[in-house]
Amino acid sequence: PWLGRAMERELYAGLDLGGTKIAAALLTGDGRVVGRARLGSRAGSGGEVVADTMVAAVDEALQRAGATRAALRGAGIGAPGPLDFDSGVIVFAPNLGMRDFPLRDYVAERLGVPVFLDNDVNMGTYGEYLAGAARGSRYVLGVFPGTGVGGGLVVNGEVFRGANGTAGEVGHIIVQQGGTLCGCGQRGCLEAYASRSAIARDLVMLAAIGQAPTVRAAAGTRLKAVKSGVIARAVAAKEPAVCEVVDRSARFLGIGIANCVNLFSPDLVVLGGGLVEKLGGRYVAQVERAMRTHALAAAAAGVRVVAAELGDEAAVHGAVGGLREMLAERA
Amino acid sequence: PWLGRAMERELYAGLDLGGTKIAAALLTGDGRVVGRARLGSRAGSGGEVVADTMVAAVDEALQRAGATRAALRGAGIGAPGPLDFDSGVIVFAPNLGMRDFPLRDYVAERLGVPVFLDNDVNMGTYGEYLAGAARGSRYVLGVFPGTGVGGGLVVNGEVFRGANGTAGEVGHIIVQQGGTLCGCGQRGCLEAYASRSAIARDLVMLAAIGQAPTVRAAAGTRLKAVKSGVIARAVAAKEPAVCEVVDRSARFLGIGIANCVNLFSPDLVVLGGGLVEKLGGRYVAQVERAMRTHALAAAAAGVRVVAAELGDEAAVHGAVGGLREMLAERA
Repeated sequence: PWLGRAMERELYAGLDLGGTKIAAALLTGDGRVVGRARLGSRAGSGGEVVADTMVAAVDEALQRAGATRAALRGAGIGAPGPLDFDSGVIVFAPNLGMRDFPLRDYVAERLGVPVFLDNDVNMGTYGEYLAGAARGSRYVLGVFPGTGVGGGLVVNGEVFRGANGTAGEVGHIIVQQGGTLCGCGQRGCLEAYASRSAIARDLVMLAAIGQAPTVRAAAGTRLKAVKSGVIARAVAAKEPAVCEVVDRSARFLGIGIANCVNLFSPDLVVLGGGLVEKLGGRYVAQVERAMRTHALAAAAAGVRVVAAELGDEAAVHGAVGGLREMLAERA
Repeated sequence: PWLGRAMERELYAGLDLGGTKIAAALLTGDGRVVGRARLGSRAGSGGEVVADTMVAAVDEALQRAGATRAALRGAGIGAPGPLDFDSGVIVFAPNLGMRDFPLRDYVAERLGVPVFLDNDVNMGTYGEYLAGAARGSRYVLGVFPGTGVGGGLVVNGEVFRGANGTAGEVGHIIVQQGGTLCGCGQRGCLEAYASRSAIARDLVMLAAIGQAPTVRAAAGTRLKAVKSGVIARAVAAKEPAVCEVVDRSARFLGIGIANCVNLFSPDLVVLGGGLVEKLGGRYVAQVERAMRTHALAAAAAGVRVVAAELGDEAAVHGAVGGLREMLAERA
């Protein structure tokens, strides 16, 4: 347990709200994690239940750190979008049963401290900038292939939000006009080719026709059971049809990133999320190669493509960073 | 002629270096144009000849303003890329016969004043921000379909350059993976669908098979003779096959812009260049409609798509703006 001067309000809570779990961490002013907690978020349980669980996760992390709420200076939350940054409202999070829920103010009232709320991908990118693989870069593009393909931008140490607060939405960049149907209703979005869901969709098909035995054994033909670990095991088993699907998805991700490199000219691209973690260096190298093939040489020169370092704690670090900026601006 | 206090060095020269012409303008401190000149730039004549012609254009504009070089505070140049912003060197401008030519320092030495050099599309976007259709916008995307499709970004009143100085390169964003061959050697770039050259390529084909009589009469089947004015006349004549080609190109431009809207979240998109000028409001509306269809609703909300206002003087205004920032930073 952390035995600091708890009464001086020098702990910052970071919360990462995922589709199935809530991760909380307590950070000191110099960025050390002194307490953690992880609670389940039941699907479809609704705004208040989820928010109360988030508060409980903070309390549990405080207890583990040997501290009380009195030590808390504020909380930062990374949450799935779409959310309204200015009002702190979760517009729509179907998995959690949230619609137009004022998450920021609800948690602030329960915890009795200021709360900062932003989307999990911005916060993940920002966390990697503050404490992970993107430290020291001036123009960071974060890309997180998962259920969709999330993205975030950090410019000169600040999250770049653009006019509508939506900047960095790489998942729905169209790379194949008229192509594969995407969950958003458009055709040809990057997500429809390069998300874990897009890979899973193809692998289930292969499983059904006997060309993906590892997937078949682990997940049958249930789309949602094709987790990143299953995909990685099938690749490790060198199942040719599976490798082809993953190679193609890496190539598309590289094309999408090339588009971003041309428009935004980052110095670093950080790839994060469970899929990247499980697939590892070979996948990252494939994505980088495709990016270099498809971006303008002048834009791609010197750009590093790296795997995230903080795993699922990136968003927690970013959210605390956002919180601290907010507090500094108010002071 | 301008009868100001010429000895006080309060005139700024703006230069727009095009493939076939050099435009010079003299601006006062409050942005009024007090002298203009326009000289031809002979194809392939080489760096020194072109640069000397630029100097002559400034002298001619000075003369028309009733002023001398003593009135000049500096010069800003918008030039076709690729160029190296930091060193002021034109890397490669095949039309002008320039390769690795130190244009900035050469002109500075001849004119005896500080010179600022950036690419014409950045400067065009910046000019529209300073004095044209993008005044007052915080996140501006400029898109200029022409020989290629140029783009520029202005954020909080400054040109956004990114890590490699190449930000805003929208022309080679891939919208159709594996699609039509582009001049850059890639397939499926926005330029291969939405530039004036791409339209001309299709119209020449139609002219050859008798489906574009206006084009046939004006240009035969010579690609380079299919100028913006010819395209606009064929559209005005409602030649169905021509309209189909132009509609398709507007739709692709909208898709490319949608990708930029998703990544960058501008509040304003300004469309400029000769093609936009000649095709007018109908074309701009088509591009806007395609952008709205293909961008995320949250990213496209409130985004205005407008035609440029300054015509071929936008880059001149932007270059003077860049010069003045440079002088202010030095002071």
